[in-house]
Amino acid sequence: MNRLGNKLTLTTFGESHGPAIGGIIDGFPAGMEVDFEAIQKELSRRKPGQSNLVTQRKEDDEVEFLSGIFEGKTTGASIGFHIKNTDQKSKDYSHIKDIFRPSHADFTYEKKYGIRDYRGGGRTSARETANWVVGGALAKQFLKDISFKAYVSSVGEIELKKSYQELDLSLIDSNDVRCPDAEIAEQMANKIKEVKKAGDSIGGVITGVIQNVPVGLGEPIFNKLHAELGKAMLSINAAKGFEYGSGFEGTKMLGSVHNDLFNQDESTKTNYSGGIQGGISNGMDIYFRVAFKPVATLIQSQTTIDKEGNLVEMMGKGRHDPCVLPRAVPIVEALSAFVLADLSL
Amino acid sequence: MNRLGNKLTLTTFGESHGPAIGGIIDGFPAGMEVDFEAIQKELSRRKPGQSNLVTQRKEDDEVEFLSGIFEGKTTGASIGFHIKNTDQKSKDYSHIKDIFRPSHADFTYEKKYGIRDYRGGGRTSARETANWVVGGALAKQFLKDISFKAYVSSVGEIELKKSYQELDLSLIDSNDVRCPDAEIAEQMANKIKEVKKAGDSIGGVITGVIQNVPVGLGEPIFNKLHAELGKAMLSINAAKGFEYGSGFEGTKMLGSVHNDLFNQDESTKTNYSGGIQGGISNGMDIYFRVAFKPVATLIQSQTTIDKEGNLVEMMGKGRHDPCVLPRAVPIVEALSAFVLADLSL
Amino acid sequence: MNRLGNKLTLTTFGESHGPAIGGIIDGFPAGMEVDFEAIQKELSRRKPGQSNLVTQRKEDDEVEFLSGIFEGKTTGASIGFHIKNTDQKSKDYSHIKDIFRPSHADFTYEKKYGIRDYRGGGRTSARETANWVVGGALAKQFLKDISFKAYVSSVGEIELKKSYQELDLSLIDSNDVRCPDAEIAEQMANKIKEVKKAGDSIGGVITGVIQNVPVGLGEPIFNKLHAELGKAMLSINAAKGFEYGSGFEGTKMLGSVHNDLFNQDESTKTNYSGGIQGGISNGMDIYFRVAFKPVATLIQSQTTIDKEGNLVEMMGKGRHDPCVLPRAVPIVEALSAFVLADLSL
Amino acid sequence: MNRLGNKLTLTTFGESHGPAIGGIIDGFPAGMEVDFEAIQKELSRRKPGQSNLVTQRKEDDEVEFLSGIFEGKTTGASIGFHIKNTDQKSKDYSHIKDIFRPSHADFTYEKKYGIRDYRGGGRTSARETANWVVGGALAKQFLKDISFKAYVSSVGEIELKKSYQELDLSLIDSNDVRCPDAEIAEQMANKIKEVKKAGDSIGGVITGVIQNVPVGLGEPIFNKLHAELGKAMLSINAAKGFEYGSGFEGTKMLGSVHNDLFNQDESTKTNYSGGIQGGISNGMDIYFRVAFKPVATLIQSQTTIDKEGNLVEMMGKGRHDPCVLPRAVPIVEALSAFVLADLSL
Repeated sequence: MNRLGNKLTLTTFGESHGPAIGGIIDGFPAGMEVDFEAIQKELSRRKPGQSNLVTQRKEDDEVEFLSGIFEGKTTGASIGFHIKNTDQKSKDYSHIKDIFRPSHADFTYEKKYGIRDYRGGGRTSARETANWVVGGALAKQFLKDISFKAYVSSVGEIELKKSYQELDLSLIDSNDVRCPDAEIAEQMANKIKEVKKAGDSIGGVITGVIQNVPVGLGEPIFNKLHAELGKAMLSINAAKGFEYGSGFEGTKMLGSVHNDLFNQDESTKTNYSGGIQGGISNGMDIYFRVAFKPVATLIQSQTTIDKEGNLVEMMGKGRHDPCVLPRAVPIVEALSAFVLADLSL
Repeated sequence: MNRLGNKLTLTTFGESHGPAIGGIIDGFPAGMEVDFEAIQKELSRRKPGQSNLVTQRKEDDEVEFLSGIFEGKTTGASIGFHIKNTDQKSKDYSHIKDIFRPSHADFTYEKKYGIRDYRGGGRTSARETANWVVGGALAKQFLKDISFKAYVSSVGEIELKKSYQELDLSLIDSNDVRCPDAEIAEQMANKIKEVKKAGDSIGGVITGVIQNVPVGLGEPIFNKLHAELGKAMLSINAAKGFEYGSGFEGTKMLGSVHNDLFNQDESTKTNYSGGIQGGISNGMDIYFRVAFKPVATLIQSQTTIDKEGNLVEMMGKGRHDPCVLPRAVPIVEALSAFVLADLSL
Repeated sequence: MNRLGNKLTLTTFGESHGPAIGGIIDGFPAGMEVDFEAIQKELSRRKPGQSNLVTQRKEDDEVEFLSGIFEGKTTGASIGFHIKNTDQKSKDYSHIKDIFRPSHADFTYEKKYGIRDYRGGGRTSARETANWVVGGALAKQFLKDISFKAYVSSVGEIELKKSYQELDLSLIDSNDVRCPDAEIAEQMANKIKEVKKAGDSIGGVITGVIQNVPVGLGEPIFNKLHAELGKAMLSINAAKGFEYGSGFEGTKMLGSVHNDLFNQDESTKTNYSGGIQGGISNGMDIYFRVAFKPVATLIQSQTTIDKEGNLVEMMGKGRHDPCVLPRAVPIVEALSAFVLADLSL
Repeated sequence: MNRLGNKLTLTTFGESHGPAIGGIIDGFPAGMEVDFEAIQKELSRRKPGQSNLVTQRKEDDEVEFLSGIFEGKTTGASIGFHIKNTDQKSKDYSHIKDIFRPSHADFTYEKKYGIRDYRGGGRTSARETANWVVGGALAKQFLKDISFKAYVSSVGEIELKKSYQELDLSLIDSNDVRCPDAEIAEQMANKIKEVKKAGDSIGGVITGVIQNVPVGLGEPIFNKLHAELGKAMLSINAAKGFEYGSGFEGTKMLGSVHNDLFNQDESTKTNYSGGIQGGISNGMDIYFRVAFKPVATLIQSQTTIDKEGNLVEMMGKGRHDPCVLPRAVPIVEALSAFVLADLSL
């Protein structure tokens, strides 16, 4: 399905080389003044060509709202929007028409549907995530008292070891990597450039931090706050893992250390729980990590197979991201906001 | 919400100290011969009191089917079932009526609902997962050609370093820990006993392996196979993280290494993808890891607060699991099966 | 699917001759004091054997709540319940095992599922509606300021021509037919007895009236209040039609007559709209009519076919309703309440 | 919500005076060759200005598909589309900005949302139904062996008394009314012109006929085929009632007459059931009737109130339908097809 959310829903469409991508946001409350500039700004954080660390495709990514907003305010009606595709170069992709790129969805789409729009990845393209950023940007405005931040906390082996409390999160956008530590950011940038030069790609981790969350968001059994967050994050192209609070490291701890003891004001002394107890927010910071694999498309020759099972050599062409992390930061923030908005209705 | 799945759904109810827990399975195909013994066997793998590593509560956990099965076969009608609660001792819990246990859902339920059944955790009790095992056991029978296995791969710092391919998965139930390596299992068992003796608790990791999966399961955008698996696993009490395929480790790799090259038979030479491309199964093994924190209830004195914000000393009573991992193995398998059954319809 | 509602849901199970029927109510608000007696009273209005106009089966129809209620109040957790089947006589039905009763769901179930529980109609039995009455009775208590009434307004050709405003709706239960006009009720009762004597059956119409409805319930496009009401009513066994406000008669009117002009207090002078504009309640009374066909099971010989297509004579046995209308009144009320509760959340 | 369907869904957006309306069709099977001309033809049957019986607005109603179709075939990806609004004259509507038109959704939207796009009805405009026609036209192509027909069977008091079997349904589009009986059609047309001249409006009934339906469509309990059909039809602007098979008339019959006896080939001798038993299609023709009220907007002076409760005189302006029936015929067909496509997946 092409729908995220239960009460607030985002339904999307679009292939990277069709006329447009877009979506419908349903269930958005009426009467909210929309800050269009803020939405466009989030899209610009995600768009290609914004720095020399990312793909050099040139998409303006201008969102047009078609409904649900009247005289600058939401009306409670469904909000339709689209983003035109302006820089698609379909010729670029004819060489992959009949072959399956390694670690790409070419093969699985072909087998599932018997047909696929192979141009630029078609529906599998991460271009889809621009739709999510629109939904998330509106959600951020709805939940204006909650802060949604994300940053790159590792690229390959280069890891930012400081916890989010030790960082100045206002510096996230101060460099192209979107890592709020200038020194580590530079190391990451250099690594990405090195990998790019080699026609290779590299993965990494994004940390998300949600602050000033009211107590009580999330459902107890199957729509736990962290399960919904995890599902949303795992929907991002190239995502391979999600952990929150103490995560995988916490598995090594004893309960007597891991338990977050209460202060008398109902806050907790530690926060291994990551702001969520039994699937419901407890008012402490929510923090989590999302793992991203190195993207599959390389500017290197690889041996693969075609539809008939013949071995063929292929050479990635086109303009690809050597590392998706910098552009994925606004996506992680957007989905965080969307999930919380959905659970808050 | 208390519902898992989209086309095949499991809706559940029940508190640990009410008369019964249970559920309704909707969308199950007609005409399948039900192996009741196999279902009961799965429940026995999850039930308390099965070994000295787990809680000594005595629940028979006998499932009664109330509908949807006629003369031993599913009819396509909704399948209602319940499991009676037979060993609840409500007195055990009166001491926690007005206090919030650290790192427990007591606090968040109280704030969200203004009321809670405090006896034995009420709705937050992991007893709920017995319902999931019933759903998963039926799903396993429906997908009888697919193999669903899970095992304990770490307890605290004790880690089974072998990959699942190096293990004999038929040995999972050969020891109480449910770790298929006898030597490591013994270390884990000793660790759990030590922790138990100290009235403490400890976490760990469960690895899941799904084999013989047909190509094409999963939806491309928001119901990706791994996102649905992740959501289901993160719904398990005490779960803190989920990763599949190369997971968090894969973030450190280069794309040229990480890419899974095809063989001419459409299998891949490596499987960092974990059997899923673009959210859709590619026919290779699906494998994943789930992190579990140390459970919150300790048989130690802890300082906490009551509803009025007074500091109080509390001492965990009752019969608790020092480590949930051994009993969580059948839950991981059950949810795996349920998610795949849902996506296969 | 076996689920009604979107935010407040009722999921059900059960065959007439299984051990029990039941359901799960999910999304019910926390903190409501439950009046169990009132629920049981609604069930008694629906149960068989209550008068000589209806089937003489003897079911106690006692509902047992299994979860979601603690110390008499709802907790926000899912509410599981069941109603045991106590008077099933499976022998009664062996004669219909291999044949398709005319105008019954025997044929369509067999073709759709390839298997069916033929005893007493199995899942097709109107016994299922006892579950709905439980859900509706709880919904009524939640919406305690809204009045939900229904009554029999025709049986065969005998029609109560007065509008609901001309009737004393407190008299609905003053006779076995549940028609608030004593004289017409007697005619209806005589008609039903006559039909019963002949081993035949007869249909009729139930009018529903919902009063004191707040403005604003219902969704504009696809979950219009009247569309949801209509869907719910058409789900009742034997229902063949639904109209609200001016209904089919209103199609003959001119707009200049049909339009409901406003009073200055925002009420309207007439109410052809039936309390709903654009799918949303306007605060005026909601009223509607539901058509019920004569039930298919007769105590007469009918020629029909068996699974092999052979012509066979069959004679209805067992204890059947000659007219479902009197027992359907509480079902119409229950579904009205459930639909409005769902839309009010 | 702005979504129709369960497995096949149509999510929509759009106000009559925004830049465009549109929708997303999700769950449509892959590999179907799309006949774009046929879709456009259905839209032309619904569009304004097509004859002198309907509104003289001039909308081209050209649908543009934005995704989900590649080289003329569906790909299984979500199908986004929009229809530009080209003839909106927003000045026309400033006179109704602060007043509530009688029997219109102005009042209920204002109360529910506190804001509304008053231009041309905004989201309440029947222009929305153009989106439904797109969805239905695709569904018709998917279910190409099933025939979906609808026709005007009454306008005001003028009633086509023949049953659908006595009519030549290929003549539906042979006149502007869309009534397949030329003589009655002319009476209807004259009536509509008379009403139009008077600045008034009039209602009527549309009969739908679905033929060549496979056995087994529909779900037994809450997604009965007729309940889903009814819900869809009641979603159409101005719809007031729905009945299928023998409908309200059938309530007057005895069961011994109403029962549809089987032929040995599993067809039935009569078809009072309307092709549906227990919510599931039995292979016989499905037929139903939908009641439409006279539309509320008149070209006459009416007294109404404004937001402050002042009495004001208003005079409908603009270009309105005196009778929605002719343009509603393709909508009824479209929704029929969409509902059956949804249930067939």
